Amino acid sequence: MATRGLAILPVEGLGEIGPGDVLAEALAAAAQPEPGLRDGDVVVVTSKVISKAEHRLVRLAPGGPDVRELVERESVRVLRRRGDLLIAETAHGFVCANAGVDVSNVDRGWAALLPLDADRSARRIRDGLRGLLAVEVAVVVSDTFGRPWRRGVTDVALGCAGIGPILDLRGSLDSFGRALQATEIALADELAAAADLVMGKASGIGAAVVRGVEAGWLRQGSIRAEVVRHPGEDLFR
Amino acid sequence: MATRGLAILPVEGLGEIGPGDVLAEALAAAAQPEPGLRDGDVVVVTSKVISKAEHRLVRLAPGGPDVRELVERESVRVLRRRGDLLIAETAHGFVCANAGVDVSNVDRGWAALLPLDADRSARRIRDGLRGLLAVEVAVVVSDTFGRPWRRGVTDVALGCAGIGPILDLRGSLDSFGRALQATEIALADELAAAADLVMGKASGIGAAVVRGVEAGWLRQGSIRAEVVRHPGEDLFR
Repeated sequence: MATRGLAILPVEGLGEIGPGDVLAEALAAAAQPEPGLRDGDVVVVTSKVISKAEHRLVRLAPGGPDVRELVERESVRVLRRRGDLLIAETAHGFVCANAGVDVSNVDRGWAALLPLDADRSARRIRDGLRGLLAVEVAVVVSDTFGRPWRRGVTDVALGCAGIGPILDLRGSLDSFGRALQATEIALADELAAAADLVMGKASGIGAAVVRGVEAGWLRQGSIRAEVVRHPGEDLFR
Repeated sequence: MATRGLAILPVEGLGEIGPGDVLAEALAAAAQPEPGLRDGDVVVVTSKVISKAEHRLVRLAPGGPDVRELVERESVRVLRRRGDLLIAETAHGFVCANAGVDVSNVDRGWAALLPLDADRSARRIRDGLRGLLAVEVAVVVSDTFGRPWRRGVTDVALGCAGIGPILDLRGSLDSFGRALQATEIALADELAAAADLVMGKASGIGAAVVRGVEAGWLRQGSIRAEVVRHPGEDLFR
């Protein structure tokens, strides 16, 4: 699976996305002329952009719920609680801070919820770009999660289309000819992390293109079906 | 912190590394002519390569310990146990499967332990490359870890030199002019994940170059001091 190298390219000029915007159209326009979109590119889009387009913004109190109420509403299981911070499981099965409820990069007085079905959002963008530009791209929807044991946050994938989120190397041979064990590489998460390096939380770049991935990685895929770990096989839930 | 894009380039032809090999020399040779090494590049090296060079291979039974004994010896705290799999904390403070003891990509009958001090290993390589090639590069030592709640493994950083592993954006303004909260980006981990996309577990490529990172990311840094979370502030230990 060696490749001759990847390029990670920001999609600048996406601009502010609002409720009902067609993301494939916005992305198609913003990606021209640079970096462009080519067959085999992976387009990484932040979930915040998806949430704005898909009416997942909620007006806060007064007149609506406060953040704490929203977090409780979005949580199906609370794993840890410290002060105002909850580590909670969402209906999708994601485990993250405040069940994904986030007030950064949205208008004051509003909060963003996670997309209802980020795999579906990714498929829509992929299909839209195929229709608009006649390109066959993969799409990854990313978000920024903390993790236990290590400081700092990294981007992971909440949804994908046109790419397998897990590359299963079990049974492949290592460089000594021995079968690799338990090596299922979380490709979509690594692509999300790579894309974050060119996005930047403060600069409002909501999408990036990863160019040069292996053709063998491109297949139907789903984060929810392949990456979310079932509670029964999870040692930390 | 927007950038005009990154290139992730495999360092092919590093070849098999053995005990006592000087990694800076091996990397300097393998990186020529492509991808070369330039000021500001981040060189990502897998910990397996470091372990081989730094005498961190152990001969297994008969004649030595078995893997289970090694794992117990490398663990300072066992978080979870299921069958032969331990999730354990190492003396460095890393939490990972089998305390980092690994038999893949080493000769049959041997196991690799994690580097004793991967920050120091990274500094040595950085200093060595400066001496050999008169280039100022950053170095990240990577390894492949699983994580709770999500299937699949991703590469993270065990050590670094010449780059800040955490980019602290607290107090920066989001695109709406509001101060970002709790946004400390785990840059070194995202760089390790990005590099893994061109390495491949099976193909034995032990290093990659990330070219084009922000100049502001380059500073003194340490994974152990900045990324390893103290048990006292950890909700999952």
